Amino acid sequence: MAKSNIYQTLQVNLPGRSYPIIIGQQLLNENDIIGNHVTSKQVLVVTNNVVAPFYLHKVQKIFSTKQCDTVILKDGEEHKNSTSLFQIYTTLIEKKHHRDTTIVALGGGVVGDISGFAAATYQRGVNFVQIPTTLLAQVDASVGGKTAINHAQAKNMIGSFYQPKAVVMDLETLKTLPDREFQAGFAEIIKYAILNGGDFLLQVQYLLQDGLEKNTYQLAEIISRCCQIKATFVQEDEFEQGSRALLNLGHTVAHALEAYTEYKRWLHGEAVGIGLYYAALLSYKRYGLSLQVLEQIDNLLALAKLPRRIPNDINLSRLRDLMNKDKKIKNNSLRFVLINSMGKCYLEENVTDADLQAVLQSAVEE
Amino acid sequence: MAKSNIYQTLQVNLPGRSYPIIIGQQLLNENDIIGNHVTSKQVLVVTNNVVAPFYLHKVQKIFSTKQCDTVILKDGEEHKNSTSLFQIYTTLIEKKHHRDTTIVALGGGVVGDISGFAAATYQRGVNFVQIPTTLLAQVDASVGGKTAINHAQAKNMIGSFYQPKAVVMDLETLKTLPDREFQAGFAEIIKYAILNGGDFLLQVQYLLQDGLEKNTYQLAEIISRCCQIKATFVQEDEFEQGSRALLNLGHTVAHALEAYTEYKRWLHGEAVGIGLYYAALLSYKRYGLSLQVLEQIDNLLALAKLPRRIPNDINLSRLRDLMNKDKKIKNNSLRFVLINSMGKCYLEENVTDADLQAVLQSAVEE
Repeated sequence: MAKSNIYQTLQVNLPGRSYPIIIGQQLLNENDIIGNHVTSKQVLVVTNNVVAPFYLHKVQKIFSTKQCDTVILKDGEEHKNSTSLFQIYTTLIEKKHHRDTTIVALGGGVVGDISGFAAATYQRGVNFVQIPTTLLAQVDASVGGKTAINHAQAKNMIGSFYQPKAVVMDLETLKTLPDREFQAGFAEIIKYAILNGGDFLLQVQYLLQDGLEKNTYQLAEIISRCCQIKATFVQEDEFEQGSRALLNLGHTVAHALEAYTEYKRWLHGEAVGIGLYYAALLSYKRYGLSLQVLEQIDNLLALAKLPRRIPNDINLSRLRDLMNKDKKIKNNSLRFVLINSMGKCYLEENVTDADLQAVLQSAVEE
Repeated sequence: MAKSNIYQTLQVNLPGRSYPIIIGQQLLNENDIIGNHVTSKQVLVVTNNVVAPFYLHKVQKIFSTKQCDTVILKDGEEHKNSTSLFQIYTTLIEKKHHRDTTIVALGGGVVGDISGFAAATYQRGVNFVQIPTTLLAQVDASVGGKTAINHAQAKNMIGSFYQPKAVVMDLETLKTLPDREFQAGFAEIIKYAILNGGDFLLQVQYLLQDGLEKNTYQLAEIISRCCQIKATFVQEDEFEQGSRALLNLGHTVAHALEAYTEYKRWLHGEAVGIGLYYAALLSYKRYGLSLQVLEQIDNLLALAKLPRRIPNDINLSRLRDLMNKDKKIKNNSLRFVLINSMGKCYLEENVTDADLQAVLQSAVEE
């Protein structure tokens, strides 16, 4: 990892498609850092109605010598659907964007995932650059090439693996991020802390104990470490044939909760907060995780002010049915990422419905 | 190419994803030939309302020991859209198809292209097997991994490159193919004859002069040769960075005509018939193709009973505007595949709008 005083670059190395993740301050104010990765004459910037007023003009300025069109989606996970996707396709066609155009995603995970899928599928694939502006997108969603839209019945059900040309994170954008969005980002950070254990877990724990502050030096380090951890998984197993599946820790319950509530009730990170707790609880109740680690995880989630229990208005039988529609199924048995100890997670292929039912019922919010 | 008395196998060799094209008689009556390429416990057969009554029961029988679900689309290019695509996704989700399922396309190019795109994008990619039942799909659409749906304003605008596990062609299916569909298939065959020249051109010419007969030995040979020619292009340039673009001969005008008429007036092959004539006419009027070859091409199209002229109710200025939305644009100039002589085509990057206008106007159906 090269470092300078203004930004650091982390390289994701994949066969034939390596690309940089650039992390720094004020990167949206510098034309070259983003501009260097966009060689096309046409650009489509995709963003949403919350992010646009803050940052769209900066990105438009970077591309002022090009044909630069924009799509402004409605904010929110419930808009990560085919309507938004076709809004992008139609603009691309009406503005006559060709196969050599570049789609630039400016926003959080929803904007990044939809834009990436549009880039993967418009004219069978065009250039793609990510500018993640939320903590969750910076630590997780913008890295690794998973693109998707939701189906009403299941999260991220339609998508593809498609790597960007570059990911550029301007940490200044976190300053305008609402607290709720900021906290939601910590769910994925805590996931990486559990997956990695060791010094990174300690680092996250210290930061959370100090209180959530945006844009500290420590936070920049944590974002960079999350990207490194994720890049390592992705480099080992780009298409999730094996080890990459561990990154789904907490996501089986999370995705079902999101689909159940029509993607409206929780931010993705909040649903992951709940999902992490139940992954830990299942690991504790049936697979020998120590009570101490269960409590440590619950405590980390609490420090991040994340929801941790399934509310009692959720019908658990319907929720289990939604889990059976999730992607993490193989040969009709539900696969869960479980926790052995901090830094040691594994894929359990044979979680029974009875075990799952017992664990879900044992901890519902009163 | 291995041969037996009942079928021949042609291998498409791509990095890490080689697959067979199996061509023969009565293959739908043999469980193993298709069955060997489907190892999953779940199968979704996608077909349409015209093909289903003839062949769906045969395919269902092959998969009688598996969970075999079906989607029956409406027949026609105008249904190669997001509505049909989401019909497939919804069935996959409702029937709880997992990441290890197989989508089987039973039908023509429309069924194959939509199913292939669904396979490429459901859960970020599942197994895919093609059983093309039209001449056009057998000689062209089912080979090479291009998948797509149409956008109202431009053909095949949304799609991806996604290779099947196997392509199985039962030539018996041509017996139930309507004459109009059969003739349309010859447009792509004539395209391959122009691209290849030589003995293959002669072979096609003889077959056409003898009259169009379904299911002859000569036709089987021609289908196999088309697949070989296409496979060679695809192996050289899977993602159409260069030479594969020659396969678009006739398709710039064809795609614009199809979008213009909302995909309802012509079969794809019919539009390609017209497109081939104008590609030849442009080559003759502006780029030195001999009059003799122009007439030879026109004659081949006539023998196949294909339309060859743009009808006079088509507004040529609107048609040119639609061509500018086509995928075959680079750096804002229209790219045409032109003909130098039989067997010698090339990509012309700088066709001017004035030249195009003159050529389109010079031959409109009275």
